[in-house]
Amino acid sequence: MLELRLVQGNLLKKVLEAMKDLVTDANFDCSATGFSLQAMDSSHVALVALLLRSEGFEHYRCDRNITMGMNLNNVSKLLKCAGNDDIITIKADDGGDTVSFMFENPKQDKISDFEMKLMDLDSEHLGIPDAEYHAIVRMPSSEFSRICKDLSSIGDTVVISVTKEGIKFSTRGDIGNANIVCRQNTTVDKPEQAIVIQMNEPVSLTFALRYLNSFTKATSLSETVTISLSSELPLVVEYKIADMGYIKFYLAPKIEDDE
Amino acid sequence: MLELRLVQGNLLKKVLEAMKDLVTDANFDCSATGFSLQAMDSSHVALVALLLRSEGFEHYRCDRNITMGMNLNNVSKLLKCAGNDDIITIKADDGGDTVSFMFENPKQDKISDFEMKLMDLDSEHLGIPDAEYHAIVRMPSSEFSRICKDLSSIGDTVVISVTKEGIKFSTRGDIGNANIVCRQNTTVDKPEQAIVIQMNEPVSLTFALRYLNSFTKATSLSETVTISLSSELPLVVEYKIADMGYIKFYLAPKIEDDE
Amino acid sequence: MLELRLVQGNLLKKVLEAMKDLVTDANFDCSATGFSLQAMDSSHVALVALLLRSEGFEHYRCDRNITMGMNLNNVSKLLKCAGNDDIITIKADDGGDTVSFMFENPKQDKISDFEMKLMDLDSEHLGIPDAEYHAIVRMPSSEFSRICKDLSSIGDTVVISVTKEGIKFSTRGDIGNANIVCRQNTTVDKPEQAIVIQMNEPVSLTFALRYLNSFTKATSLSETVTISLSSELPLVVEYKIADMGYIKFYLAPKIEDDE
Repeated sequence: MLELRLVQGNLLKKVLEAMKDLVTDANFDCSATGFSLQAMDSSHVALVALLLRSEGFEHYRCDRNITMGMNLNNVSKLLKCAGNDDIITIKADDGGDTVSFMFENPKQDKISDFEMKLMDLDSEHLGIPDAEYHAIVRMPSSEFSRICKDLSSIGDTVVISVTKEGIKFSTRGDIGNANIVCRQNTTVDKPEQAIVIQMNEPVSLTFALRYLNSFTKATSLSETVTISLSSELPLVVEYKIADMGYIKFYLAPKIEDDE
Repeated sequence: MLELRLVQGNLLKKVLEAMKDLVTDANFDCSATGFSLQAMDSSHVALVALLLRSEGFEHYRCDRNITMGMNLNNVSKLLKCAGNDDIITIKADDGGDTVSFMFENPKQDKISDFEMKLMDLDSEHLGIPDAEYHAIVRMPSSEFSRICKDLSSIGDTVVISVTKEGIKFSTRGDIGNANIVCRQNTTVDKPEQAIVIQMNEPVSLTFALRYLNSFTKATSLSETVTISLSSELPLVVEYKIADMGYIKFYLAPKIEDDE
Repeated sequence: MLELRLVQGNLLKKVLEAMKDLVTDANFDCSATGFSLQAMDSSHVALVALLLRSEGFEHYRCDRNITMGMNLNNVSKLLKCAGNDDIITIKADDGGDTVSFMFENPKQDKISDFEMKLMDLDSEHLGIPDAEYHAIVRMPSSEFSRICKDLSSIGDTVVISVTKEGIKFSTRGDIGNANIVCRQNTTVDKPEQAIVIQMNEPVSLTFALRYLNSFTKATSLSETVTISLSSELPLVVEYKIADMGYIKFYLAPKIEDDE
């Protein structure tokens, strides 16, 4: 039997909003350690990995490992029925073919429960090895989101280059060329506003802006985003989920002749 | 001659917004007691009844009963030209074929007047007898609106059931099943937030969510809504209009085999 | 060489928003005195004239007169990438075929630069003589915008009439007739809220609301608008740009038989 109780139900709403445009159907995996998901986007170009650790839940009971296939759009529709301050409880029986979601409002005078059929989905769990990256940049998530959106109005792909001085985002399109440089900056009022660059080796890689813009749907989950780049590895865009885990997006670079 | 002066012109704007999606053309009836309207929706399934009592107007002159047929969409367009703090005056001559609306802003430096042709519409005044209901529920209007909207993302019809403990809204659709229970709750900070259930007999009836969603366009008129249910009578959804009257929506239950 | 540095980069963003729906391509003219533009709308009915005086820039260097043809929609796209508090620098080489825009954020940790190809456009500079107007009305720009928008829901053209007492906007359509009168009012809390009428001769002219609504895109540039009317001249709708200049829109009256 599975029973998870999350006081900050809002987090789950945001997690679904962050994934639902990228991934249609996916398996949620529950084990004693936590609630996780790994899925490719429908065009098999990007990968999303979610982890919500068991310690982050008010109550977490998972008698045996269980995999629940769901249509993320439907889950998102259900979660939209939860208020932002609602407590969310997820329940499933071992071997059952349904999952239930319960929302309790803070005044405790409204209780909503939803039952949803589970789907039978092929699991394709990719092992993602811990890797050394050439450069890791932490910056305000809203700034990263703004840059991806702004550059999309000019071009389709972005070259992300990291040097010791900063991270540069470049694009070109019919209108012209654009370069946005964010400099390392740790003298800020709040640590979340810092731009921190860890670099072993300069790196310059090209990515499709369409996917980066999808990733930034997770912006509301965290005030900062961490971007990890290496010339032999997919880009990682990571949003920490306070005290609970993370949502990570992986994207392979584009090989372009003219860059 | 008819001359009505309403200091809270905003109320009239909200009344039109509440009705215009449901009803296309309707007769406004003015008498010494007040300004009223009764109309079926275009599919002849729902009925709306409006009353604004003469005492609620700053000035109310109605020499003889007068019936004015108007296209509610056009009236709504005119009223959108009124500022939220404007004073609205409605004038019509006995036997004339036009009505005029005048809006005065609080600074008294802007006066707008509009003249509109009246329409000749068949009156179909239904007598609505005062009836005993099995259950009457008063709840925050925003909560009722939220529930109708949320359930619409899952199903097309809602079963509303009232017991002594609470009011339950249930639906089912391709995604799954949903139940939302609001419990009687009178220990609240503000009386408008209470959920008050008066029940003579348990009742469970099915309604089309489409119409309920239309009714909730009146939410801005009142912080509370009263829902009256009886197995032999149409549902009544009533929004009080402060010190002036009400807008009531009537809807016949659906007869469903599988409920 | 041209180099302009504008601390209030926001102004330039608003200027482009104000013009881009009316004018597709236009020449920006830079001289020692300032940065200006004059262009007809695509249907050759309305004219827009912009002036930003050199004194309004933090840094203004213009070695020789230079004309830069740009697609306003593209410029607007670039400027949308500038934050509201960014400093904007515009650079161009004499005889070059590109212009560059640079945006610096207040924290100085983000620098964006954009390079855009210039276009070769025919110049059609109209001399606009200083003229005597029958009536000049200054009023809150938001009020003028509201009136144009409101009347558009009723009719296509507006008759603007000025007498000593006030300015009247009238329209008629299928729904009915509308008249909005704004009275001279100088007893206001803030001078921007005043309605000030200077009249030599009563005047009554008809204009297409579509163009007036386009002009009101400039509303965010100034709290007041000045409307100048004369029976022999195009209407002028002018928005002052604080300490820097103005944006003026010219529109010829419609000759209508039934007015």
